[in-house]
Amino acid sequence: MKKKTIKVGLLGFGTVGSGTYRMLTTNANTISYTTGVSIEVSKILVRDLSKKREISAPAALFTDQPDDILKNPDIDIVVEVLGGVHPAFDYMEEAIKAGKHVVTANKAVIAKDGPYLTNLALEHKVALRYEASVAGGVPILNALSTSLQANEFTEITGIVNGTTNYILTQMAENDMDYETALKQAQSMGFAEADPTGDVEGFDAVNKLSILISTAFGLRVAPEDIPREGITNITKEDIICAKQFGFTIKLLAQARRYRNTLECHVQPAMVPLDHPLATVKNEFNAVFAKGNALDNVMLYGKGAGAMPTGSAVVGDLLEIARAYAVGTADKTIPTAVNDNVNLKFDGEGQNMYYINLLAEDMTGVLGKIATTFGDYGIAVKSFVQNTASKQSGRYVPLIYILGETTRERLNDALEEISKFTFVKEIKSVISVAALD
Amino acid sequence: MKKKTIKVGLLGFGTVGSGTYRMLTTNANTISYTTGVSIEVSKILVRDLSKKREISAPAALFTDQPDDILKNPDIDIVVEVLGGVHPAFDYMEEAIKAGKHVVTANKAVIAKDGPYLTNLALEHKVALRYEASVAGGVPILNALSTSLQANEFTEITGIVNGTTNYILTQMAENDMDYETALKQAQSMGFAEADPTGDVEGFDAVNKLSILISTAFGLRVAPEDIPREGITNITKEDIICAKQFGFTIKLLAQARRYRNTLECHVQPAMVPLDHPLATVKNEFNAVFAKGNALDNVMLYGKGAGAMPTGSAVVGDLLEIARAYAVGTADKTIPTAVNDNVNLKFDGEGQNMYYINLLAEDMTGVLGKIATTFGDYGIAVKSFVQNTASKQSGRYVPLIYILGETTRERLNDALEEISKFTFVKEIKSVISVAALD
Repeated sequence: MKKKTIKVGLLGFGTVGSGTYRMLTTNANTISYTTGVSIEVSKILVRDLSKKREISAPAALFTDQPDDILKNPDIDIVVEVLGGVHPAFDYMEEAIKAGKHVVTANKAVIAKDGPYLTNLALEHKVALRYEASVAGGVPILNALSTSLQANEFTEITGIVNGTTNYILTQMAENDMDYETALKQAQSMGFAEADPTGDVEGFDAVNKLSILISTAFGLRVAPEDIPREGITNITKEDIICAKQFGFTIKLLAQARRYRNTLECHVQPAMVPLDHPLATVKNEFNAVFAKGNALDNVMLYGKGAGAMPTGSAVVGDLLEIARAYAVGTADKTIPTAVNDNVNLKFDGEGQNMYYINLLAEDMTGVLGKIATTFGDYGIAVKSFVQNTASKQSGRYVPLIYILGETTRERLNDALEEISKFTFVKEIKSVISVAALD
Repeated sequence: MKKKTIKVGLLGFGTVGSGTYRMLTTNANTISYTTGVSIEVSKILVRDLSKKREISAPAALFTDQPDDILKNPDIDIVVEVLGGVHPAFDYMEEAIKAGKHVVTANKAVIAKDGPYLTNLALEHKVALRYEASVAGGVPILNALSTSLQANEFTEITGIVNGTTNYILTQMAENDMDYETALKQAQSMGFAEADPTGDVEGFDAVNKLSILISTAFGLRVAPEDIPREGITNITKEDIICAKQFGFTIKLLAQARRYRNTLECHVQPAMVPLDHPLATVKNEFNAVFAKGNALDNVMLYGKGAGAMPTGSAVVGDLLEIARAYAVGTADKTIPTAVNDNVNLKFDGEGQNMYYINLLAEDMTGVLGKIATTFGDYGIAVKSFVQNTASKQSGRYVPLIYILGETTRERLNDALEEISKFTFVKEIKSVISVAALD
């Protein structure tokens, strides 16, 4: 069916919702010029009608009744920007069943129930789009599923959480410890009062699950993705990283080896001359490796009202343009999640950076090296960091180890920690496998 | 019309053509799994049937008769990878008129006749796609016209020519002069025997014209874009750039100020901490600034059989997927080229880096500064480069000047060059306006 005016119901009017509304009104001319249709926000669902809002919209648009949108036959597209799993999921499900297209920025719902909702949308001949759910304004999902779709991907590595990237950048550039950088991030609005979701990697595993589904056609539940946050990263780690030519980033990474897929979210040492090392503060980036493309990277703002709104409206306009040519009921799903040729195989192997404190005496280095060797772990490089000697007796020993499983590494480190000359294993950080 | 097998005719079997063929065969399983259709190359047009080819294809596929493809009713999509304007343009025109979809990597034809062919395609209800024409494997055109379409763009800055970027990178990193770096690029296959098209910026203006059309909906002919190549860049310029915290890149840039659009292709000083500075050797990147997005950058390989083939096949699969759902006759054009709100206004203002050789005596600096001042040109920073003093009498003076037009700058420099104490104006290089 061709349409000249598309009616939109907004579920939520927080940061992303108001950004979306602002974009649709600010860029209305450009939008109707490029798409050939007008977009009209008909209703906005909010919890509290009396709340004062920074961005104004006509009072008549607001409602606190979900059914004013979900059961409204005039509304073509529902934009879900509530966040959280419930009631967001339920509203999306209901909207799809009512034959409405859905655009969402909700990584939690898409990571959890994206495949179910995608199939439901196909069945009801509506579109389900969620570009904004991963890396905000960075158009990675659309790129993976359209322009780059001819590739068989072998690697996806992303900096997909702006909060942790801001904290790590501030620690590295302004010589801060984790707590100070976190407080600054909170005061700048880049971190929430309870930062757990970001700093422990929960946000990133959701996004990685969506990226895996899009790039590899495989469903890996967020809770199955090996996850490690940044709360243990110290100022000393960051300084040592620099000495070795690295910077520390929280990476969400998936790698394919033949028919297996390995993935994890973890802090990792990234070589300073790698494009991902230049991604600073609240910026996000996703780096992909395909069998034709070689390397490609998309970089931009991962959060915020307008960058995320840009992605939401981009999705909205794709649906609007389909209305303009009469193909809105024939949508193409972003991800197909039943790649039978691929099996999820846990975290896989990684290189590691180890910082341990040991007595400054002969025989120590040999015993440690022998233990790593016993576990089949190669020592790639080693520095006795006498410069940062912290007490008379102990000296930090920094190792870069060759590829090994986390399990084998832990076994080796357990044995090493039993040596009486070892005071403490201070840091264990992966070294990114990147080209 | 829904189809299960899409038949493709390839016009050309050079680097990109054979890369496209290889991808379609190598990734055939992935393709039919993600798109729901099979793609079959039915015919390949070549000039010389007897030529030995590195990539083999069944002999029966090859033809030297264009009509075997253009007049073949079984062929759904024509992929044009011949390069050059004629006969590529004529074949594309004929294919569109015959109701065939067209995918092309041809920047020359699209820069020159993209708007005409786009309208022709709309009229004949077929798709015309050309992602590969700009920055090879970097999916910038699709991103600008889909995911990012909600933005009003204010700036597009690209490193879109791999040859010149390779040469400039080698000069900067391995302390080479231009001629040596060019020879190395030629021996590596990154530059042609006659490098004019690349090093003088002709290739880049074609790509910039396409980017402008896609991002701003404005048609600016390649020959109207102010253009300067890299042949005058010296080793000394690159060393000086480093001292000021810059690297030199050949930038294709378009900037919008209210209702005017300024653009140029020219070598420019790029701050070392800007993402574009990290784009090295044969890599390309396009940096865009939109009113919602803020900054976004897409980075990847700009040329070569497989990266360009990846873009061609990506376009092909978008059409194939439309066949799979029966919407192939309802295409949405990438660019609409009649933005009445925007006017092309030449090169605009730039900051500049100037290196001039003057006598080492009092009064010189004052007279030069006064002359710049007379023309309303601010001196942003200045270094008397005594370290690289080249003869007893003369010393290089390095200026970074504030924004000015090229015309006004030339007038000021002409007056300065008349001073008897000025021996030579050695370099005039723009300083990129970037955030």
